[in-house]
Amino acid sequence: MASVSVPTSLDGAKALDCADSLAALRAAFHLPGDLIYLDGHSLGAATHGALARIDDAAKREWAGGLIGSWNDAGWIDLPNQTGARLARLIGAAPEDVIVCDSVSVNVFKLAAAALPLAKNTRVLIVEEDEFPTDQYIVEGLSALADVKFMRAPAGEGLAALRERGGVLVKSAVNYRTAALADMAAHERAAADCGGVVIWDLSHAAGVIDLDLNACGARLATGCTYKYLNGGPGAPAYIYVRDDVAASVRSPIAGWFGHAAPFAFDAAYAPKEKAARFAAGTPPVLSLSALAGALDVFDQIDMAGAAKKTRALGDLCLARCEALGLPSPSPAIGEMRGGHICILHDNGYAIVQALAAAGVIADFRAPDAIRFGFSALYTRYQDVWRAMDELERIVKTASWDAPGFKKKNAVT
Amino acid sequence: MASVSVPTSLDGAKALDCADSLAALRAAFHLPGDLIYLDGHSLGAATHGALARIDDAAKREWAGGLIGSWNDAGWIDLPNQTGARLARLIGAAPEDVIVCDSVSVNVFKLAAAALPLAKNTRVLIVEEDEFPTDQYIVEGLSALADVKFMRAPAGEGLAALRERGGVLVKSAVNYRTAALADMAAHERAAADCGGVVIWDLSHAAGVIDLDLNACGARLATGCTYKYLNGGPGAPAYIYVRDDVAASVRSPIAGWFGHAAPFAFDAAYAPKEKAARFAAGTPPVLSLSALAGALDVFDQIDMAGAAKKTRALGDLCLARCEALGLPSPSPAIGEMRGGHICILHDNGYAIVQALAAAGVIADFRAPDAIRFGFSALYTRYQDVWRAMDELERIVKTASWDAPGFKKKNAVT
Repeated sequence: MASVSVPTSLDGAKALDCADSLAALRAAFHLPGDLIYLDGHSLGAATHGALARIDDAAKREWAGGLIGSWNDAGWIDLPNQTGARLARLIGAAPEDVIVCDSVSVNVFKLAAAALPLAKNTRVLIVEEDEFPTDQYIVEGLSALADVKFMRAPAGEGLAALRERGGVLVKSAVNYRTAALADMAAHERAAADCGGVVIWDLSHAAGVIDLDLNACGARLATGCTYKYLNGGPGAPAYIYVRDDVAASVRSPIAGWFGHAAPFAFDAAYAPKEKAARFAAGTPPVLSLSALAGALDVFDQIDMAGAAKKTRALGDLCLARCEALGLPSPSPAIGEMRGGHICILHDNGYAIVQALAAAGVIADFRAPDAIRFGFSALYTRYQDVWRAMDELERIVKTASWDAPGFKKKNAVT
Repeated sequence: MASVSVPTSLDGAKALDCADSLAALRAAFHLPGDLIYLDGHSLGAATHGALARIDDAAKREWAGGLIGSWNDAGWIDLPNQTGARLARLIGAAPEDVIVCDSVSVNVFKLAAAALPLAKNTRVLIVEEDEFPTDQYIVEGLSALADVKFMRAPAGEGLAALRERGGVLVKSAVNYRTAALADMAAHERAAADCGGVVIWDLSHAAGVIDLDLNACGARLATGCTYKYLNGGPGAPAYIYVRDDVAASVRSPIAGWFGHAAPFAFDAAYAPKEKAARFAAGTPPVLSLSALAGALDVFDQIDMAGAAKKTRALGDLCLARCEALGLPSPSPAIGEMRGGHICILHDNGYAIVQALAAAGVIADFRAPDAIRFGFSALYTRYQDVWRAMDELERIVKTASWDAPGFKKKNAVT
């Protein structure tokens, strides 16, 4: 791996925590007891602010304010306002982001909307190691819209796009390896060939310093329940660059994307900008938790947070390397997202043993263990201790013992 | 109007409340002060159980249980389990209902899925007085899937279906007039012509005694934030009759509709039954509020609740008739949903004046005032008092006074 400076002892890790300018943010989170939670890439931890916000939304706004809260509590503007706050974290203009639906539904909407933008070729491309739901969604859309579907080999979506144009759905950070895509290169290729890239930012937003505008991204979506700590199944978002918005239409033309949803016109007239991609009535309670979670992010600079996340990952990788555990994650921090993946035939059993020792990681079939780091609440000493447990387990485990069966975990 | 027995005084209304076997359920609801809330057809009131459930989901399950709650707290089964409880209220088998997405997204999914079922003709039909989002969605789908779109005159969807087949999207209860569709007649026509009806139950479920199985319904969706009291923007649901499920596929093939979502297979294999219409990660916090709200419904028989709702509506209609206010709502209770609509050029001003007097109704442009009744928390005396206020307003109002301007209200 690249030569980076990492602590070589628990004391060294603690010293980094003492010097960490982000360390105080950890107090904003509800973290159960001594648990070392390294699964924020799957479900982020709760902030006290998010818990307070959902409590207020349920009791004061819904139960107390009833229908009047659409105006009085600002529910009607919440998808836009929350999107605007989120925009800063991904390098977008405030009005270019709207919170709505799930990533699955949003990939569908964006891929369908992008088809008329893609000159020359009606083909939908997705790589074979892409997060499964993105593959399923794109293939399902191709059947409905009668568009060619192409599943490209891993890492070859860019080449496929260059060769034939069309619409490529691509994760900014791979869910398994944590490899960061060269977003600017993809966008240059798209510009050259008349194609379109739709970015899935699920494993990237809130943990690395994305700059959608600078890299030329036009369309993106992502979830908010991972590094953005919006809560289980928190609504996703859609980014549409300002100059593209007028040229795209959501195929799911719901009333919340209508310019005048309460005029009850028969004819559809989409809202301006990204807001035209809203569909049905937003899930106000879940959305309120997300709005509360963003309070912590309002205080931080993503570049500084990303720097710390890379250092946490470097420490994890160095310890795994010392144990001889292979990792498909990029050794250079700038080329990674917020998690580190290691491969082991007994990955599921290891993750179970780690959980029994108070370290929460996760497993992805068939052999991937993932450790996720959030600059907002993960400490260097947490990573050190987690790696101590990992070392103990891999050096002492009896893989044939009962209960150490390989199987899929839910999440 | 039809000759029905309604109370003729406040004391008479109170006597009915005393004799009401459902009266005790009102204590399950958080109802602010002396407010008379007749807007449950737009946003249902909160139950103490729903508020407790979302509090528990946020604090104990999310903040405390973190990722483990997908299994330990049963989040993974919540869309199915909640759908199964809801199924009884609409006359469906438990496994034929799944909670997912919004009505807008679900109408899209069902209408697309129904196209291959509709023999002979690829046409999507919707009536011109249908709830606007249903019209927008169907028109948007027709463009994407290259299917003919037909906007039928009000009330003529059935004739259009008989004549040409295709897929008709139709509300069981009209959002404006509260007229109940003859669901069995529609289904007979669909069976005869090889067409398909997709029912929007948004203004019907939780307030009248629907029996989807008995009337031959095959596909339906509806929202849960009105009479089902699931909370603002609570997730919607999809009903797919068992014998049809294997023949239909959701066009939005998200991972939560996959038979093995955590196997991360590249190939899509849909779940059995209605569950195949799930798409992305469910909004657990919003869904938990809905699950809590259904506790009250678990105790009741919908036929009894519907009988009371009709009686509340009869009282409202009788008072409005005495005031000379025209209503497009059916006079016969069995032909209505849970709300009563009256028409007035100054409808918006009247609704504002009612609110100032502590009576919450709503307004739909250009001239419709809606009063909604829930058998679970609306009392006969509430209707009587609301009508007293309405009488005072229409008899004394000066329509040209400042602040009495016509305009659209949000919701």
